[in-house]
Amino acid sequence: MAITVRPATPDDIPSILRFIHELAAYERQPDAVQATEAGLLRDGWQQPVRFKALIAECDGEVAGCALYFWTYSTWVGHHGIRLEDLYVTPPMRRRGVGRALLQRLARIAVDEGCSRLEWDVLDWNAPAIAVYERLGAKIMTEWRIMRLSDDALKTLADSGT
Amino acid sequence: MAITVRPATPDDIPSILRFIHELAAYERQPDAVQATEAGLLRDGWQQPVRFKALIAECDGEVAGCALYFWTYSTWVGHHGIRLEDLYVTPPMRRRGVGRALLQRLARIAVDEGCSRLEWDVLDWNAPAIAVYERLGAKIMTEWRIMRLSDDALKTLADSGT
Repeated sequence: MAITVRPATPDDIPSILRFIHELAAYERQPDAVQATEAGLLRDGWQQPVRFKALIAECDGEVAGCALYFWTYSTWVGHHGIRLEDLYVTPPMRRRGVGRALLQRLARIAVDEGCSRLEWDVLDWNAPAIAVYERLGAKIMTEWRIMRLSDDALKTLADSGT
Repeated sequence: MAITVRPATPDDIPSILRFIHELAAYERQPDAVQATEAGLLRDGWQQPVRFKALIAECDGEVAGCALYFWTYSTWVGHHGIRLEDLYVTPPMRRRGVGRALLQRLARIAVDEGCSRLEWDVLDWNAPAIAVYERLGAKIMTEWRIMRLSDDALKTLADSGT
């Protein structure tokens, strides 16, 4: 079986949106997705570009997607890459599709001069963490994400002079 | 005492680099900083711009900095803002400088249509977490950061066909 990885095009947007919904369901938040095809087109293919995506195909059939954006580390003094979503369709799992996507993303990161490729993982997803650790990734146990969102964000924004 | 917040300019680069070093020392990684003035100029003021920074001044004296970049949420279907560094010089602490920087950043986020302003925090930094929670931020207890870096990243990059 031949796995190929290529940059996504606007023709892939329906697949990408479907994958976003399926991944959210897996992550126990099936109603969390507000993304739309129009929004993905705007943010992935119009300036300023906010993300890029890679599509994996198995024997010519779309099998998965990696969607990423760029971070910045003041310690490294260089941008890095953050993998936002990694998704493989259920029938195509356990065939190396996820690894092929991560490998290509690592190649892109190295070619861009990045020294870090990062992503978030749910702490209860031990099988995924084990896979990532076998690829050489380390879990940053000390760090937590703080999030200010929606009404709390607006309240702070409006509190200034 | 008047606190003002303004976008950083290239003239602020020496201050920004000094703050990066001081923050790394506080975070118990004093030797972690590889950033340079030339790299900050490249990444903050040349295309593609990788980060932006805000400078806080107290009575005309530089008192702190917030450095941020743009994320992307597939659930929200919109970019967000990630605060990479928030730093206030020791003599200027406990005067509202950090809050003024966060407030301005929240304003920028709302004006850009973002619904999320995020940042990382060390889980042992309880005083900082308490301050952030009072501003309405929530700690994402389930999520961990996975990082593939340096040699492990190159190994994966080189493993592809």
